[in-house]
Amino acid sequence: MTTPLILVLGTDPPPRLGRLTGRARVRYADGRTLAGQLPDADVLLVWDVTSDAVREAWPGPGRRPGWVHTASAGVDRLLCPELAASPTVVTNARGVFELPIAEYVAGLVLAFAKDLPRTLEYQRHHRWQHRETRALAGSRAVVVGAGPIGREIMRLLHGLGVRVALVGRTARRTIHGAGDLDRLAAGADWVIGAAPLTEETRGMFDARFFGLLQPSAHFINVGRGPLTVEDDLAEALRRHWIAGAALDVFQEEPLSPADPLWEVPGLLISPHMSGDTAGWRDRLGEQFVSLYERWAAGEPLPGTVDVQRGYVPSTDIP
Amino acid sequence: MTTPLILVLGTDPPPRLGRLTGRARVRYADGRTLAGQLPDADVLLVWDVTSDAVREAWPGPGRRPGWVHTASAGVDRLLCPELAASPTVVTNARGVFELPIAEYVAGLVLAFAKDLPRTLEYQRHHRWQHRETRALAGSRAVVVGAGPIGREIMRLLHGLGVRVALVGRTARRTIHGAGDLDRLAAGADWVIGAAPLTEETRGMFDARFFGLLQPSAHFINVGRGPLTVEDDLAEALRRHWIAGAALDVFQEEPLSPADPLWEVPGLLISPHMSGDTAGWRDRLGEQFVSLYERWAAGEPLPGTVDVQRGYVPSTDIP
Repeated sequence: MTTPLILVLGTDPPPRLGRLTGRARVRYADGRTLAGQLPDADVLLVWDVTSDAVREAWPGPGRRPGWVHTASAGVDRLLCPELAASPTVVTNARGVFELPIAEYVAGLVLAFAKDLPRTLEYQRHHRWQHRETRALAGSRAVVVGAGPIGREIMRLLHGLGVRVALVGRTARRTIHGAGDLDRLAAGADWVIGAAPLTEETRGMFDARFFGLLQPSAHFINVGRGPLTVEDDLAEALRRHWIAGAALDVFQEEPLSPADPLWEVPGLLISPHMSGDTAGWRDRLGEQFVSLYERWAAGEPLPGTVDVQRGYVPSTDIP
Repeated sequence: MTTPLILVLGTDPPPRLGRLTGRARVRYADGRTLAGQLPDADVLLVWDVTSDAVREAWPGPGRRPGWVHTASAGVDRLLCPELAASPTVVTNARGVFELPIAEYVAGLVLAFAKDLPRTLEYQRHHRWQHRETRALAGSRAVVVGAGPIGREIMRLLHGLGVRVALVGRTARRTIHGAGDLDRLAAGADWVIGAAPLTEETRGMFDARFFGLLQPSAHFINVGRGPLTVEDDLAEALRRHWIAGAALDVFQEEPLSPADPLWEVPGLLISPHMSGDTAGWRDRLGEQFVSLYERWAAGEPLPGTVDVQRGYVPSTDIP
C-alpha cells in the first residue's frame, strides 16, 4: 500500500501534521486548485472553513477521497447532493468548540442582564448613571439546536440558575421538538440560536419569529449566519419588538465596513469568534491527527456527520 | 408600652413600611436632623446608605436606639467607637445582594475573558477583527472576602469551571487566611475584592499588591471603594502590570466627571450598581419589616453585625 495522501484545503499549514511524517503525504490546495487535486487524495482536510470550494469541486469527474474532515462544527459549506450520495465519511470538529461557545453565550447573556454595553458607553461620556439590572437566576432561555453546542450552552446557563429549554428537530427525552419552539420563545428572556444550517433552519429567525418574542427578550446567534434574516432582526430592534441582540455569525463574513448592521441600536456584533479560545488551532490539528491514526488503522471514526441531515445526529453522540 | 418609634435616615420612603401601620410610628431624618431625633428613636433604619450621618451623630448626648438596621451589606459608614461600645444591636441587608453581585462579577469575568469591551469598541469603528479569547474553565480566581458575598461569587465561578480560592481574615475549613493571599494572588487570573472595609482592609489593593499579580491578571472590586488605592491601580494598568480591571465602588461616589479614572486604559467603571437588580428596594423594605416583627416580638435578630470586627462573622451565618 502506498502512503496515503492528505489533501489540505487551505494555505496555512495546520499544526501537529508533522506528527504524521512517514505515515502520510500532505499536499495543499486552494479554491482554484482543489478540483484538479481531489482525484489523487485519500483524505481531505478542510482547514480553511470559510471556503465553499468543496461543494463546488466535489461534483466534478474522477476518484474522490473516502474521508473528509472539516475543522469546524458546521458542515453546511461542504455538503452537496453528490457528497451526500457518496460513500465518503464526513467528520467535524466535535469537542473543540462546545465549551468556548457556551462560555461566550453566558458572557453575552450576563452582559445584557447587567447592561454592560451601556455602562461602557456611559463611561466614555464620564457619566455616573446608576441603573437597576436584571437577575439572571430564575430567568428563562430557549436554546435552538440540540447538538453538542446547544447542550453545553444549556449546561452553563443552568449552572447560573437559568431555566433552559432545549429545542431540536424532533422531541426526545429532555429535548423539545421544533413544534414547541414558538410557545417556548414567547415566554423566554433569552433566545439562543445554535442550530446547524439546513434547508429547514435557513431563515428561521425572521420577522414572524421576532414578533413572537417579549419586548424584554434578547436574541443571540452563534450558529450560522443564514439562520437569521438580518434585515428582519434590524427592524425588530428598531421597532423595540425585542430589547437587544448579539450576532457572532453573518450572511456574509467578514461583515463589510459599510454594512448597516454595525449601527443597528441594541445589536452587538462580534467577528465569528465565539468558539476560538487561545490554542484552538492546536486543538483542531491534534484532533485531526488523532482521527487520522484511527482511519489509517482501519478503525471506525466516531461521531460521523449524517450527510443527509447535515449534522451529527445526537443519538450518535455519547 | 407606647408604640415604638422607627427613625428612618433618608428622604425616600422605604416600600413595605406601611405594613407596620399601628405597630410602629415612623419618622424621617436627614444628615442635618438626625442628631436631634436620635434620642427619641427605638429603632434606626439606615435607608440612605450613602450617608455618614450615623457615625457623626451617634457620639452625641441622649438616649440611643437599641437596634440599628442598615439597608446595605457594608456597615463601615455607620460604625464608630461609641456605637461599637454600646449594647445596640446592628443588622445589615444580608441575603439581598449576594446573588446579584455574584452574577455581576461572573459577567465582568466573562466580559474580560471574551474581550467584550474591545468588541464593542471595534463595532463603533465598523471593524471586523477576529481575536482568540480566553477559556474561563480551568482559570484561577482569588476572591478576597469570605462573607456571604464572597462565597456566592465563589459558587457561581465554580459552576463555570473556575478554580476559586476564598481568602478571609483567618483560615478555617475551606477558607484561606490573609497570610495566603500574596501567594494565591500571584497565580490568579482573576482577583476579586469583596471584603468589608475595616482598618485592616483599607488600601489593601495597592502598588505592592498589583506588583504581585501576573501581567495577564484582571482585578475586580465590588466590595468598598477604599479597599483600592485608585492611583496605584491606574498606574498598574498604565504600566501593564495587569491586563485589566473593573471598579464598581470608589473612594468618592459618585465619581466626578473630571476624575482621571474614567480614562484609564483597561479600566471598566460602573456606578456602584452590582447588587441592584430590579426590585432590590422592595426586597430591602420587606427584609426590614420582617426583622421588625421579630424585634417587636422580643425574638433575637439573626446574623447581627460584630461591631468590633465591622462585619457579620461567618460563624454566625448558617
